[in-house]
Amino acid sequence: MQLDVALLGFGNVGRSLGGLLLRKRDALQNDYGLTLRVVGISTGRHGQAIDPEGIDMEAALSLVNEGKTLAALHQGAEMADTPGFLAKVPAQLLFETIPTNPHDGQPAFAYLYGALERGIHVVTANKGPIAFGYQELTQLARRKKVGFLFESTVLGGSPVHALLREAFPGAEVKRIRGVLNSTTNYILDRMEQAGLEFDAALKQAQEIGVAETDPTLDIDGWDAAIKITILANVWMGAELVPADVDRTGIAEVSITDLRHQMDQDKRTRLVCEAWPGDDGKIKAKVAPQALPLDDLMTSLHGTDSLVQIETDTLPMTTLIDSGSGKQTTAYGMFVDMLNILRGRHDTSIKR
Amino acid sequence: MQLDVALLGFGNVGRSLGGLLLRKRDALQNDYGLTLRVVGISTGRHGQAIDPEGIDMEAALSLVNEGKTLAALHQGAEMADTPGFLAKVPAQLLFETIPTNPHDGQPAFAYLYGALERGIHVVTANKGPIAFGYQELTQLARRKKVGFLFESTVLGGSPVHALLREAFPGAEVKRIRGVLNSTTNYILDRMEQAGLEFDAALKQAQEIGVAETDPTLDIDGWDAAIKITILANVWMGAELVPADVDRTGIAEVSITDLRHQMDQDKRTRLVCEAWPGDDGKIKAKVAPQALPLDDLMTSLHGTDSLVQIETDTLPMTTLIDSGSGKQTTAYGMFVDMLNILRGRHDTSIKR
Repeated sequence: MQLDVALLGFGNVGRSLGGLLLRKRDALQNDYGLTLRVVGISTGRHGQAIDPEGIDMEAALSLVNEGKTLAALHQGAEMADTPGFLAKVPAQLLFETIPTNPHDGQPAFAYLYGALERGIHVVTANKGPIAFGYQELTQLARRKKVGFLFESTVLGGSPVHALLREAFPGAEVKRIRGVLNSTTNYILDRMEQAGLEFDAALKQAQEIGVAETDPTLDIDGWDAAIKITILANVWMGAELVPADVDRTGIAEVSITDLRHQMDQDKRTRLVCEAWPGDDGKIKAKVAPQALPLDDLMTSLHGTDSLVQIETDTLPMTTLIDSGSGKQTTAYGMFVDMLNILRGRHDTSIKR
Repeated sequence: MQLDVALLGFGNVGRSLGGLLLRKRDALQNDYGLTLRVVGISTGRHGQAIDPEGIDMEAALSLVNEGKTLAALHQGAEMADTPGFLAKVPAQLLFETIPTNPHDGQPAFAYLYGALERGIHVVTANKGPIAFGYQELTQLARRKKVGFLFESTVLGGSPVHALLREAFPGAEVKRIRGVLNSTTNYILDRMEQAGLEFDAALKQAQEIGVAETDPTLDIDGWDAAIKITILANVWMGAELVPADVDRTGIAEVSITDLRHQMDQDKRTRLVCEAWPGDDGKIKAKVAPQALPLDDLMTSLHGTDSLVQIETDTLPMTTLIDSGSGKQTTAYGMFVDMLNILRGRHDTSIKR
């Protein structure tokens, strides 16, 4: 079987994915009889290329790493912009990794909607379109009978969505808890373990690349709110947007607070939670919480993250991701691709 | 869709499964359009019953709970024994929960082999036939184009097999570590936390029903060896039998040892491991190990269990099960049933 794919977005994650597709070429052939061709790449700052005969991924990675555009690899008429690329690229599956817009998920939402309408499978690592448009995109994918998966939107490519999709059929999800933002977890851990003040811990996080130059979205709990919105909407049938989440960040957490909690054998984590309220509607909250040492969340260190699931059938299942980064995000997308080809986006039972 | 199922084994887990099928009847109908009928039950001490029109599960549970046989529910000619039951029961799927034979997996292996040969889907919670016959049974199921799943053999129904099957396609499993036996974990935890001697901790475990009257299989690490054999054979392509596992139990662990390790900020757990040796063959080991506090295994308490997976693509994924028991084992089997109906036993890609 041959599959033609396109990459929309070719930053850290997109390039890692390109490298992974190269590295796994033989494994895909041997394990699944699958031959992959990358027929289009659209970048933010290095132009776009389409080649129906297949783009040489090594050449594309070299060009971009050298700061050049992909123009030399393009075959055919010129394309004006991303919509032009998406209208023309002859792919069966689109990998999308453009930057997340935390306010409305655009323009990614429109791009993915258009691709699904054309009958193209979609795999995204972008939190925006899932937090703001999961239902609409999923319903469109069903109508068009194509796959739409997004493993890498939460927990850095660790398989939280696969776990919930495959391991909890017929179960009622009663609560989801998580430590979903690794930047804030790293900062709190450094404050607790090394006795650093907030500003010093943030600076250290920025130096080693865990925190962005502008860390506001992480520190204020906004990234965490987007992620718990995704989990609540996808797995608990909620209809939240991130602004609905009761959100407190960690900017006000002081070393004095943390020490006071540590004296009582507690550790502080930025905890995300979603649960059904008394009115039956799903509520979600992000806030620093001081937790007793027998809470598994206190065993997280550095950039570890965690999701904990309570259902009517399994009292508590905990998934912990250690060591994630752009490589694992890329692998989550690779898994989504294989799971679409294995028909996993269809969760109905067959005759 | 209607599915006729049979239960081979009707002890703690089998009866929990019977109750779960009753409790989930409406959910199965609403979520999946699935109508389930139990057309046969075979017990160790309460006889057997077959009714092609469907057995009343509430009546069956009442009879057995009152110490009576199922004879009153049987329709048709008399059956001599279990092979007679299996030859006649008109089921499309068999749930098997007879006691584990830790030495060769018999007679369960023969029963499952026979059912698969008849073209019946099989779901088992029995470690024996998987530890000793995974390859043979799986190949037979493939030839017969039926499903064969066994989620509840490891980690009490928590979804370790689903996770590995669905979330790691195209990945190379480099190491599996686990704390897989909850009895020994409970005993070590009580020794460390409450300062109990081994015998006192074992007695406590027996009183609350965590340890069997004859706890030898747990204490000697044999149950753990069977479980790591299953994980190694199914997910790392090993061809081990439990006796191949380098095995040390916890009978020789003293409170003095544990205190000595605790003074160095270490906690002791009965660790199971499987990894590729220098000759490329998979090795497996079960032994008490003193672990530093930043090892997630030390955060387990009581009857928690854990599996940790290292691959070439995700550095470390940890799954922790808390609160498992006969109910969760039953739910693992229920999930296997739905996953067979969803085609999940087929992991190939489709055109």
